[in-house]
Amino acid sequence: VQRRVKPSPADREALKEAAVSIISEIDLLARDSNQEVKGILVGSAARDTWLAGDHDLDIFLAVPENGDLEKAMAIARQVATDYEEKYAEHPYVHARINGFEVDLVPCYRLQDASCLKSAVDRTPFHTKYIAARISGLEDEVLLLKQFMKGVGVYGSELKVGGFSGYLTELLILRYRSFLGTLEAACGWRPEETIDLEGRGKVFSEEPLIVIDPVDPGRNVAAALTLDKMFQFVAAARCFLKDPHLEYFFPNKPSPLSDRELLQAIDERGSQMVLVEFEAPAVVEDVLFPQLRKAEGAVKALLERNDFSLLRSDVDAIGKRALMLFELESWELSSVYKRRGPPVWEEAHMARFLTSHPDPISGPYIEDGRAVLELSRKYTRACDLLAEELPRLSLGKHLAPAVRSGYKIYVGPELAGIPGNELRLFLTSYLKARLRMG
Amino acid sequence: VQRRVKPSPADREALKEAAVSIISEIDLLARDSNQEVKGILVGSAARDTWLAGDHDLDIFLAVPENGDLEKAMAIARQVATDYEEKYAEHPYVHARINGFEVDLVPCYRLQDASCLKSAVDRTPFHTKYIAARISGLEDEVLLLKQFMKGVGVYGSELKVGGFSGYLTELLILRYRSFLGTLEAACGWRPEETIDLEGRGKVFSEEPLIVIDPVDPGRNVAAALTLDKMFQFVAAARCFLKDPHLEYFFPNKPSPLSDRELLQAIDERGSQMVLVEFEAPAVVEDVLFPQLRKAEGAVKALLERNDFSLLRSDVDAIGKRALMLFELESWELSSVYKRRGPPVWEEAHMARFLTSHPDPISGPYIEDGRAVLELSRKYTRACDLLAEELPRLSLGKHLAPAVRSGYKIYVGPELAGIPGNELRLFLTSYLKARLRMG
Repeated sequence: VQRRVKPSPADREALKEAAVSIISEIDLLARDSNQEVKGILVGSAARDTWLAGDHDLDIFLAVPENGDLEKAMAIARQVATDYEEKYAEHPYVHARINGFEVDLVPCYRLQDASCLKSAVDRTPFHTKYIAARISGLEDEVLLLKQFMKGVGVYGSELKVGGFSGYLTELLILRYRSFLGTLEAACGWRPEETIDLEGRGKVFSEEPLIVIDPVDPGRNVAAALTLDKMFQFVAAARCFLKDPHLEYFFPNKPSPLSDRELLQAIDERGSQMVLVEFEAPAVVEDVLFPQLRKAEGAVKALLERNDFSLLRSDVDAIGKRALMLFELESWELSSVYKRRGPPVWEEAHMARFLTSHPDPISGPYIEDGRAVLELSRKYTRACDLLAEELPRLSLGKHLAPAVRSGYKIYVGPELAGIPGNELRLFLTSYLKARLRMG
Repeated sequence: VQRRVKPSPADREALKEAAVSIISEIDLLARDSNQEVKGILVGSAARDTWLAGDHDLDIFLAVPENGDLEKAMAIARQVATDYEEKYAEHPYVHARINGFEVDLVPCYRLQDASCLKSAVDRTPFHTKYIAARISGLEDEVLLLKQFMKGVGVYGSELKVGGFSGYLTELLILRYRSFLGTLEAACGWRPEETIDLEGRGKVFSEEPLIVIDPVDPGRNVAAALTLDKMFQFVAAARCFLKDPHLEYFFPNKPSPLSDRELLQAIDERGSQMVLVEFEAPAVVEDVLFPQLRKAEGAVKALLERNDFSLLRSDVDAIGKRALMLFELESWELSSVYKRRGPPVWEEAHMARFLTSHPDPISGPYIEDGRAVLELSRKYTRACDLLAEELPRLSLGKHLAPAVRSGYKIYVGPELAGIPGNELRLFLTSYLKARLRMG
């Protein structure tokens, strides 16, 4: 594994060269325009904890505490020719330079991490903290990162909800090795707390709590979900029992063929409903929370209407946003039971009866309550979805996207939709199986 | 109403004559066989609170406190020629004599109702208590009884769970008139307590509590169900607002035709499943509790298997026992979700995973728990019923009856079953509608 994850001396040289050249360019542009802007290499490249094959560079453009980030942005735009502007808390430039993916991020240059002006201002402090302590443990970080990648828990972006690079580095500082981290993880429970400097604020109700050494009020693992945390724990247990290269370098899943897909759907005997619409043009960290919120709203809609949901998932593939729902029951009787107030609450009951003047049957009494049997508006889950989806509260960017049109595919129709990535999404849904035992 | 419910002088004469003749016969037979057995007229006939058209006589055969009930049974058998033996707490004779339905019930002759040897021994005390107080209120009792009959809440047998004759008499003693009782009932709530002699034991969690004046440890309304109690209350409210003869003498429901039945089933869009088997040869008071218990067991079976029940009912028609189930969802996915223990409980989780070695999908993690997706044994409610019914705990007499064979009718098949009474059962199920508003 070491051999495959550790960058070669040539790779290192190339990366260093690229970084140095970009930073000199920044400093040159700053001097020419008489701006106090300074290029700083941060992230895994700065700490020698980047995985072989990664060609990512994080370079910050620091302005003085009372400076203007827009000045730094102006320089960032000049550094690159092939670039796009992105937007997190502040705008930044994502560029391709000599085969590297480079994030050029304006930030403030601060004395102390306790008085941040922006979330990214913390990063240089992280780099300093790790660089000063990680020496000799870099390879352990690489192993842990690659293991996490392999078992699907690496990445703190909201789509994944896994472990960030900085978090893996802190884990190695805490447990001193890759295997030590895995062994420790086997004993983790929710609210597990790691506080390297022993001065953190008390957190609770978070899955994993890792106090940020440079900002003790912050949980470095805040983006980690309970399920990703324990996916890592389960994988760690299995690996320690029976180590395999595959944990680090899993076989790429191959998409099911049309026939296999239809077979899998048939074996499940459920009703799968896929909703597709055009993804709004926002970054994944904005899109995914809205997709998940919409997923929850649809789930609540189905349950409110007495349908039973088995499982669901969302994805965004290029410009297509996808929401998949699998139903345990998808067709119900026309008649449904509406329980009213107790018969001894006369006024309540009278209001209940007059508000439903034309029941299919009833009123009758059950457990002392008036009951009416009324006609259901939607007897089929897919009709309910098709009709009510645009009326749900779907989030700022998703709502207009859905309202401008969506398609619904039901059951075997799913096999007819083109697109390899969509097929992979369906495949991984149908074949969901973690290493846990 | 008075005119229709009050027996004519000729009816009274005939009833009195029949009672006197049977009692003299008993006394004669007792003297001849040298037994100390005495005939006593009890029940509504003894209190002048019987409804016109009723031809029921309750005659008790009392033996001394230390006597032998079997001696009384021997005499009862000789009184009648057209009779059958029945069995409640003790055996008794049900006979047809000169157009009357006569219950000949052996009992002990006691000084005091507080030391009963059998439940029926209380009855002569009831007769004495009411006869001494009801004079002048007999017509009010008749109105109340007929009203209760008309709205379907009269009869303390377990099949009905309504008001007994003795209970209606006590209500009239308490509220002094038919209308007074209805007005009082409008204010009833659960655990309403009536204690004429003001010395009753404290009951709770019973719908209506009417302390027995001759046995203060007993609730006369113990057999009344919450729902029948409030069916009476709801009818009382409606009647007081808009009195009609129909409350006393409702139109007999006419059974739906085949076409109407199919239409009603279609309108409901549910799945109706009727189970039919031979009723065991026991009295209704034994049969109905077992039928209701079986109904509950089937309901639990359906819910355990994720089907959703809308409503159900049971009946016994001649030698046919019937259980009707109406399903809101009757077909489910093959796959179902089995939630296991939290991933951090390693040993539990390992046992969970090894006990289901071949899931359709999973394991995966949801809310920190291991989840497997397994194959359901029954995807259709009617298959589940057909297969599992004989394995349920169905009660002493019902279990062998069901095991010796049953038929299941589903949906439109219900329209093809012969029998007018069965059709009436289905009709009253489908058209369930009480006067409540």
